[in-house]
Amino acid sequence: MSDPALLSLGEAAAAIRARTLSSREATEALIARIRRWQPIVNAFLPLDEEQALARADAADASEPAGPLHGVPLAHKDMFYEAGKVSTCGSALRRDWVAPETATVLERLSAAGAFRLGALQMVEFAYGVTGHNSHYGHCRNPWNPEHVTGGSSSGSGVAVAAGLTFAALGSDTGGSVRLPAHFCGVTGLKTTFGLVSRAGCMPLSHSLDTIGPLARSAEDLRLLMPILAGPDPRDPETGGRWTPDPRAASEMTIGVPKAFYVDGLEPDVARAFEAAIAAFRSEGVRIVEVDLPDQARIAGAALIVLASEAAALHRNGLRRSPELYGTQTRARLENGFGYSAVQYVDALRFRGPALAAQLAAMGACDAVITPTARFAAPTIAETDVGDRVDPIIAAVSTFMRGVNYLGLPSLAIPAGFSDAGLPIGVQLIGRPYGDDALLTLGAAFQSGTDHHLKRPPEPA
Amino acid sequence: MSDPALLSLGEAAAAIRARTLSSREATEALIARIRRWQPIVNAFLPLDEEQALARADAADASEPAGPLHGVPLAHKDMFYEAGKVSTCGSALRRDWVAPETATVLERLSAAGAFRLGALQMVEFAYGVTGHNSHYGHCRNPWNPEHVTGGSSSGSGVAVAAGLTFAALGSDTGGSVRLPAHFCGVTGLKTTFGLVSRAGCMPLSHSLDTIGPLARSAEDLRLLMPILAGPDPRDPETGGRWTPDPRAASEMTIGVPKAFYVDGLEPDVARAFEAAIAAFRSEGVRIVEVDLPDQARIAGAALIVLASEAAALHRNGLRRSPELYGTQTRARLENGFGYSAVQYVDALRFRGPALAAQLAAMGACDAVITPTARFAAPTIAETDVGDRVDPIIAAVSTFMRGVNYLGLPSLAIPAGFSDAGLPIGVQLIGRPYGDDALLTLGAAFQSGTDHHLKRPPEPA
Repeated sequence: MSDPALLSLGEAAAAIRARTLSSREATEALIARIRRWQPIVNAFLPLDEEQALARADAADASEPAGPLHGVPLAHKDMFYEAGKVSTCGSALRRDWVAPETATVLERLSAAGAFRLGALQMVEFAYGVTGHNSHYGHCRNPWNPEHVTGGSSSGSGVAVAAGLTFAALGSDTGGSVRLPAHFCGVTGLKTTFGLVSRAGCMPLSHSLDTIGPLARSAEDLRLLMPILAGPDPRDPETGGRWTPDPRAASEMTIGVPKAFYVDGLEPDVARAFEAAIAAFRSEGVRIVEVDLPDQARIAGAALIVLASEAAALHRNGLRRSPELYGTQTRARLENGFGYSAVQYVDALRFRGPALAAQLAAMGACDAVITPTARFAAPTIAETDVGDRVDPIIAAVSTFMRGVNYLGLPSLAIPAGFSDAGLPIGVQLIGRPYGDDALLTLGAAFQSGTDHHLKRPPEPA
Repeated sequence: MSDPALLSLGEAAAAIRARTLSSREATEALIARIRRWQPIVNAFLPLDEEQALARADAADASEPAGPLHGVPLAHKDMFYEAGKVSTCGSALRRDWVAPETATVLERLSAAGAFRLGALQMVEFAYGVTGHNSHYGHCRNPWNPEHVTGGSSSGSGVAVAAGLTFAALGSDTGGSVRLPAHFCGVTGLKTTFGLVSRAGCMPLSHSLDTIGPLARSAEDLRLLMPILAGPDPRDPETGGRWTPDPRAASEMTIGVPKAFYVDGLEPDVARAFEAAIAAFRSEGVRIVEVDLPDQARIAGAALIVLASEAAALHRNGLRRSPELYGTQTRARLENGFGYSAVQYVDALRFRGPALAAQLAAMGACDAVITPTARFAAPTIAETDVGDRVDPIIAAVSTFMRGVNYLGLPSLAIPAGFSDAGLPIGVQLIGRPYGDDALLTLGAAFQSGTDHHLKRPPEPA
């Protein structure tokens, strides 16, 4: 057998269940790759190899129960495990011990998975590039001079480089989809309220969502029924995971006439057109859609995000400003400038904006857009200290409206830039239409191989 | 038979059902009293007598169906009826035609009641005294030189003077309980989320509640199962009406050690002590409670209320500032001064504050407090133009914490001031513990006669 670390999540889980691969073999293979890649990409926090191997051995010694029996997984370092440090990418939490365990970790554990290690992230998840001044920048496995996207930087990198079969991330303003785009993996920003946030680091209670990254839409479909569903610990949860029985050929994708098609780099525009053609080849109906003003929607999202993040960090900033990175602190401070009336108005606009969006979508199951206007820029050109706003705006233009409206969005690899860096597209769905997105993504991936490509192995 | 307008709601409903009283007789009796009282108290908007009598005749000609068959009721002029003007006490809405009908009106109608007329209110429900510069001040039936309390001013007056058997009001910061206190009637501020707000004028979406005023707790118990319960048109609704099977003698009332007992006028303090003694006589267990900082809770409520009201009226103030009364406009403008972070923090404090309050309540079914520190002041001394804040603070000190925490509270008449004006107490309950409050109120009213007293009839 070739390197088991390069199996898909579905293949690995099936092999471990069938005992054609032991959990220890899978874990050792991943550890070997992490050792090789870590000096280049800085995706992991220090690994407790002995604990991981002990958990693998325990799985190998027991009867397979759940669908992820014995599968090692690494996650963004913001999913709490009671009694363990969760840095949240922050110096403030360097030694902070979590008082509770995240519901999503409990659910993965009940399904048989165990935690291999914790992945790097942007400080307090408040950034879109992958810079981290406390634990070192995360680096793109396709070219370590380039950014990974954030804030789930380590999650994007570790999946892309084959250091984990899948990883949890969070998406408040693009933090699952941007690393998926820049690193060339598949990531799902879930419908607001579908996945519990209990025991996860908060950033913006009106916008935060938890979602997984993996190689393929099929791998995400293995995870979602485990992760989704009501949780008494998170009153925002409500809807259950509802499989969509239709085939992609029975679905419709809308192509926006404006906003998402403006200012694209030529290689992104090409990949976007090719992706639409690929969906058409799979029998998906393609129509044009005339969406409501997306810039206004994204603007309202910014007010909500900035205000809630500032409120959450007010005490931290007051007591220990020096423990915040320059970029994070500058961005948080921007949030103190909004008035309560602006904030209330921004929230009140959500109902009408969602109604207008859904009316414009009509019978579409998804709207397709590029994930960003460009492939990964370099770390150097986006390392701008406290003048972060233009960078953030440029990187996350196509992201925030989705968070504001609470919609699901699937980011899928769709090609490569002229410089050989990944380019993605996103499929923005209807509320609780997450499974339809996975069906569309799987159809796309059955006819394309972008998601199968791997960055070159380190020397 | 004596004047049917002076029957209790329960008596009137039973008599009309039993056909010992016709709906027309009841309606005519109320109209006669309204004609007599209206020049003195200004509680009603212009009455459509013919329509009311036609509805009464229709009820008399049909088979009794619901529990309120043929019962005429008047309500605060903020419950919309599609196609009819709803002034909301405002000049801006002098000719505004409602596009939809309030769920609560639909429910009362399904129970057999019909609308006799619309009652005066404070402009946009944003005031606690009963002043109204557009439609004239509402006046206290016990002494027309004195205020009625607000914002459900007409509701308090009309029930007190026997002009309606019951009336709907709304309570965002005391607007049901204060008129109940100042006019000497029984009013229920319902648990947040128990009664639909669809089709009702909004003021503060985080605090608004709808609740009824009537002569007695027993009358309110007739109304609540009709009004309460989930409504798809109001996503905040959730809980159903749940009767509490216990007797008052199985219940416990807590008496606060601080805040609610500070600065009381001597006559209010006497009525409060007497009310506690009356509950004790009914076999209710009385204990002391040490509540969390109520001033801090009321302060958070003020930020939420002021911010949401200002956001709601921003466009109105921008386009037609001259159509707002001086007092309302000054108060709304205060709301533009809060920051988004203050607002978010004020909302985030709600969970911990409620937990602390419930922990302090322990096994208590209710906490008893005076409704205000004094009986009704005069209209003249509280008519202070744009310098409204001190008046509002003084009148509503004991109100706002209840709205912030979403708790129910029953205001019941508990005596009279040295000047012969009504004095009330409130029973603050547990979430969805509304029925326990009615049980306690009914026990209190079985042993006291404050709620049966009527203001002297006009000459």
